[in-house]
Amino acid sequence: MYIKGVGMTKFDYSDKPWWQFAYEASLEALGDAKMKISDIEAIVLAAVSSAAGGEHQTHKVSLLSDLFKTNVPIIELPSVCAGGGVATWVANRLGYKNVLVVSGEKLVDNPSEVTTDWILSASERAIEQTEGMLFPVQNVLVWQQYMEKYGATMDDLALVAFKNHQNAVLNPKAYYYQRPVSLGDIKRSPVVASPFRLMDCSLSVNGGAAAILSTEKSDVEIIGSAMATDYLLTFGREIITHFKATRIAAEQAFGQAKIKPQQIDVAEVHDAFTSVELFSYEDLGFAPIGKGAELIRKGKVNLDGELPVNPSGGLKAKGHPISATGLAQIYEIANQLRGRCQDRQVKNAKIGLCHNIGGAGGSVACHILKKT
Amino acid sequence: MYIKGVGMTKFDYSDKPWWQFAYEASLEALGDAKMKISDIEAIVLAAVSSAAGGEHQTHKVSLLSDLFKTNVPIIELPSVCAGGGVATWVANRLGYKNVLVVSGEKLVDNPSEVTTDWILSASERAIEQTEGMLFPVQNVLVWQQYMEKYGATMDDLALVAFKNHQNAVLNPKAYYYQRPVSLGDIKRSPVVASPFRLMDCSLSVNGGAAAILSTEKSDVEIIGSAMATDYLLTFGREIITHFKATRIAAEQAFGQAKIKPQQIDVAEVHDAFTSVELFSYEDLGFAPIGKGAELIRKGKVNLDGELPVNPSGGLKAKGHPISATGLAQIYEIANQLRGRCQDRQVKNAKIGLCHNIGGAGGSVACHILKKT
Repeated sequence: MYIKGVGMTKFDYSDKPWWQFAYEASLEALGDAKMKISDIEAIVLAAVSSAAGGEHQTHKVSLLSDLFKTNVPIIELPSVCAGGGVATWVANRLGYKNVLVVSGEKLVDNPSEVTTDWILSASERAIEQTEGMLFPVQNVLVWQQYMEKYGATMDDLALVAFKNHQNAVLNPKAYYYQRPVSLGDIKRSPVVASPFRLMDCSLSVNGGAAAILSTEKSDVEIIGSAMATDYLLTFGREIITHFKATRIAAEQAFGQAKIKPQQIDVAEVHDAFTSVELFSYEDLGFAPIGKGAELIRKGKVNLDGELPVNPSGGLKAKGHPISATGLAQIYEIANQLRGRCQDRQVKNAKIGLCHNIGGAGGSVACHILKKT
Repeated sequence: MYIKGVGMTKFDYSDKPWWQFAYEASLEALGDAKMKISDIEAIVLAAVSSAAGGEHQTHKVSLLSDLFKTNVPIIELPSVCAGGGVATWVANRLGYKNVLVVSGEKLVDNPSEVTTDWILSASERAIEQTEGMLFPVQNVLVWQQYMEKYGATMDDLALVAFKNHQNAVLNPKAYYYQRPVSLGDIKRSPVVASPFRLMDCSLSVNGGAAAILSTEKSDVEIIGSAMATDYLLTFGREIITHFKATRIAAEQAFGQAKIKPQQIDVAEVHDAFTSVELFSYEDLGFAPIGKGAELIRKGKVNLDGELPVNPSGGLKAKGHPISATGLAQIYEIANQLRGRCQDRQVKNAKIGLCHNIGGAGGSVACHILKKT
């Protein structure tokens, strides 16, 4: 399958219903693809439960039928934070000529306690939730194991955050566009769950993103598309310091693409927490196990490095509107391969990777895109 | 694709978490297919938002990974009451050798006001919900238009309910198994939304159902599988007295199967309300427009008629656990074609149809199954 067009709203706190973000991103993707909605044979929506937003309209499928004035098949695919990646994976397999994949999320309209409570409900209930394991806590415990085992430090994580903020400054659709954050700001930010600081955590925003997948050749081809799942209970898993589902999905995607991780020119990696970006370098095959920190220490993953990671600013500084994140990654990598990223353009980008995680590694989608 | 195995729990009020219903139904389907979970390459879950149940575990995908001890792709597909049908439709297109499609729903643990409020949220909000249009009201307004236009009566609906209750009496997994309801009971039941009576409405229950789809030949083949959507606002649609999405999905499914509606031997039709079953006879092509009532008046859709409809008891008397309903229809038709339905077995059933609706016609899945 090919990517014919992509669209994305600015990621911010603007006050619109979720479907307006989805609609705006879709219109941009349709324009980019030079298509009309009547060319679309099916729609795949990635969206989290609207119950969280106090919204009173659960039949999103029918709402999109109305919005787009179409009777084609429409499916909804919630997969918590991996929604956009999983929806792209499904759209790629459905067997249609032209499929619209879209997400719109209004995350920031919820009171903090609702967001916290509801995001927490994507983790294991019986043991972890009851122990107060919010996602930062859960990820901190993974990171503590990693530090102990491999000797990485909080300074390494600060470098990850700093890199992503530097990139976001150059991205007009990022929340932190033109708003630089210094390494000192990051290291002095308040502790959220020791040793994680505020600036180790991704940023909740509202927004939408969309892509049109087609069997018709375009300038970007999907050469690898895989999805894998893992157990709910973080500490019941085979591997504690890494996410097994990333490893499985990446291995399958590279196998389909018939390339090695070293051939990737640019990647969007799921930096829900700075630590997750760091050990995902290893799960994705960009660094040997335990050696991920070297990539950030040596600047290899910087915008001007050998393998720029999160040129968009990532979840950290572009923003993380749950299900829209995976599609925003597709948007970034497709535009990087097409040379449309202006100030944040990666040089000679021919092959790119998108890595999208749901929960603390519970579901993962990996896509490899190639400039044709 | 073929159906290798099916499973279903009893539909009742038993107090288990949703995933236990899903698990029990899956184990039965695996046993029926003579497969192990390690044979399954992907899992498609139809389930409604757990927020309604006050449940604190939204990442259902990861929970199933845990339950089945597998890392294969798992996706969740909420499509309100059409969930099971839509999940089957997606599973059929995903391109795997063996896919498990499953649903488990715990609907009856909610206080009535939560259920009412939450089921209502699958209808259009800005105009219909604010006017108090609960689903019975919405469907009554459609039915009033139908009665006015085609001269059908409430006695016709009573016959639909009576037929489905008679069938459920013979189905050990139906809520009304061995509990007959008389025509008088139906006609004397309290008015819910005039002229609908309580016995015109389907029955909320808990339960699960599952099917295993495979590329490997079995005794039941899926020869037609289609899905269509329609606008949210009932009274903003092209057709008021019928559901356009049923017509589109049915036409596509019959086209794929290369058969005519007259060749169907047995059907499970979405009787969320008795009126919906009646006019769906027409949308599915079993009767000319406006003539659906003749099928029930003449007994053609009775268990011993030309085209038995809802031999299982239907949503009306077997019970309607939201997303599990579409899979329970697949369970019934597959078993009818295999001659395994004992007291409710339809004679010489070679081709069967499943018709599953989400919302008041907002999304519809149609499947045609054939005995090989």
